[in-house]
Amino acid sequence: MKGTAIVMSNGVYDHKSAKTTHGLVRGSERFEVLAVIDHVFHGNDAGELLDGKHRGIPMFPDYQAAMDAGIKPDYLVVGIAPKGGRLPERMRDDVKMALSNGVSLVSGLHQFLKEDPELHEIAERNLADIHDIRKPRPKHELNFWKGEIYEVTTPKVVVMGTDCGLGKRTTAKMVVEALRAHNYTSEMIFTGQTGWMQGWPYGFILDSTVNDFVSGELEHMIVKCFREVHPDVIVVEGQAALLNPSGPCGAEFLVSGRMDGVILQHAPGRKYYDGFERLQLEIPPLRKDFDLVQSYDVPVIAISINTTGITLEEAKKYQAQYEKEFNVPVLLPIQEGVDPVIPVLEKMMKK
Amino acid sequence: MKGTAIVMSNGVYDHKSAKTTHGLVRGSERFEVLAVIDHVFHGNDAGELLDGKHRGIPMFPDYQAAMDAGIKPDYLVVGIAPKGGRLPERMRDDVKMALSNGVSLVSGLHQFLKEDPELHEIAERNLADIHDIRKPRPKHELNFWKGEIYEVTTPKVVVMGTDCGLGKRTTAKMVVEALRAHNYTSEMIFTGQTGWMQGWPYGFILDSTVNDFVSGELEHMIVKCFREVHPDVIVVEGQAALLNPSGPCGAEFLVSGRMDGVILQHAPGRKYYDGFERLQLEIPPLRKDFDLVQSYDVPVIAISINTTGITLEEAKKYQAQYEKEFNVPVLLPIQEGVDPVIPVLEKMMKK
Repeated sequence: MKGTAIVMSNGVYDHKSAKTTHGLVRGSERFEVLAVIDHVFHGNDAGELLDGKHRGIPMFPDYQAAMDAGIKPDYLVVGIAPKGGRLPERMRDDVKMALSNGVSLVSGLHQFLKEDPELHEIAERNLADIHDIRKPRPKHELNFWKGEIYEVTTPKVVVMGTDCGLGKRTTAKMVVEALRAHNYTSEMIFTGQTGWMQGWPYGFILDSTVNDFVSGELEHMIVKCFREVHPDVIVVEGQAALLNPSGPCGAEFLVSGRMDGVILQHAPGRKYYDGFERLQLEIPPLRKDFDLVQSYDVPVIAISINTTGITLEEAKKYQAQYEKEFNVPVLLPIQEGVDPVIPVLEKMMKK
Repeated sequence: MKGTAIVMSNGVYDHKSAKTTHGLVRGSERFEVLAVIDHVFHGNDAGELLDGKHRGIPMFPDYQAAMDAGIKPDYLVVGIAPKGGRLPERMRDDVKMALSNGVSLVSGLHQFLKEDPELHEIAERNLADIHDIRKPRPKHELNFWKGEIYEVTTPKVVVMGTDCGLGKRTTAKMVVEALRAHNYTSEMIFTGQTGWMQGWPYGFILDSTVNDFVSGELEHMIVKCFREVHPDVIVVEGQAALLNPSGPCGAEFLVSGRMDGVILQHAPGRKYYDGFERLQLEIPPLRKDFDLVQSYDVPVIAISINTTGITLEEAKKYQAQYEKEFNVPVLLPIQEGVDPVIPVLEKMMKK
């Protein structure tokens, strides 16, 4: 699947629940993003609003407005991950209009839109497809863990975080790009739906995989990548956080994926776990996750700061403080790039 | 589902891959076990062969022999978990004969037997059912983690292990029974297929659950149990092991299930991870798992020894050694029961 796309962010373009939209605006091999639909933030350039870089991606209030501007994509992509995972009512009309125009739908919602009788019927009638990318793959296509990971000699690092939705995938992508800019070969193993939408060739959607196969799929994708392209460094996109109560994740990477190093992403300005502000579930101090990763005998090779809710000056202070406390490079990816981690990776390649 | 059953162990009754059969022979609320089919170990009493306790469960070489002995069950149960999870060819004839006689089939294999055209057709024709208990439940029946676990005031302990298949469920069951014998109320939250087959009212099958819902289903089952029966102690059956590369598991219990204590099961006579003997993947010293559990801020309240491959004398030595090293009660469940953990649980109840 490859083609042009309009992405819908349903009025929450400024929020991390639109991270699929953000990922596609940042760049995708799979979809050329022609426009974003957002009834709150329309009128802007999606790139400029995201990180100040103009990318020529206009934002419209609805699908009709995009059509009126002469935009006709191959795909309409649901670019948000709402709580509960169902299609918000407000987006339904745009979805129906796109399908009626023969435009295929791509969704990573928990609710499978192909099973919605009305949408299914409109799609059928107009020769449009509905792709529910979170649909678990059939068992006979899935892999158990086999121990083949031991043959992978390429250094493998994973970007883990102290919470969900704080930019792990973006940091991973930037590390791959920085390595390539330094004339190394590198691949990202995606583990979330946005990674799939961005078109990375190796990976799987971890949270929609039956638990028994998570370790095996992870191993399989790393081994496949190693065998096929032998990159200098493999960078794995982490999921959730080791101590996130709504779904701890991380041991899979450290134990089954046999990672050689961890880049640990943290948002010092975020007090509570994503989505659990009402319950006041506090994210522990960075030290806790830092030590826990290393209890699995994998070193943290860098820390990466998400600056949500803090000023650049404050971020710089945290950077200096963490560098002193943890004695590893501390990245501000969005503000300064990720180059400080390159020498660490170069040392790993030489081993 | 409740009724009488014949369980098939396919010639491996002496092996841990027949642990579902063992679990049913040990006792089940769901199935009254009338007989075991095993072409190697037939002629014995299944209980006596398992742990020396005669239970009046005869073993036959095949289904025909059981029928000849006048045994007609409600269910035929696949009591093994073969590598790869497919129905062994040798069992197929027995399965077909049972279905032809209107006996329903219960299977926890990865392969869904209801999707086998021949078996499906025989079942339909003879009004027999095929229950694939590992079949993932539909999403709308599943729960996300909500944070309701914080309302559970009952002490919650989990039996975790340093590997798969070393008796975690049996220890958990024995702890519940010991508590009941001491006039406390207690429930086990099952997390594997054998627990389901044993008929425990609260639990789910962790490894066949889509990853996103594992934490939520665990929370839901604990909370449901707490709300409905308010037991004095909730005992959770663990799965796999924190450091098992083929599928690490444990953080779910510690972080999402907010366990108050861990009983850590270990087999000092086992050198390699279950199923990875050829790759020589060594189980680390007990200290490693012991410390790692506590890195999650949950105390190990007891150690439990599986004596496979060692003599009772050797087991006693390990018991003394671990007691000294770790300063917690060390159980030999099969040989001595689990009573030494009761005072620890009593202290937790008083808090």
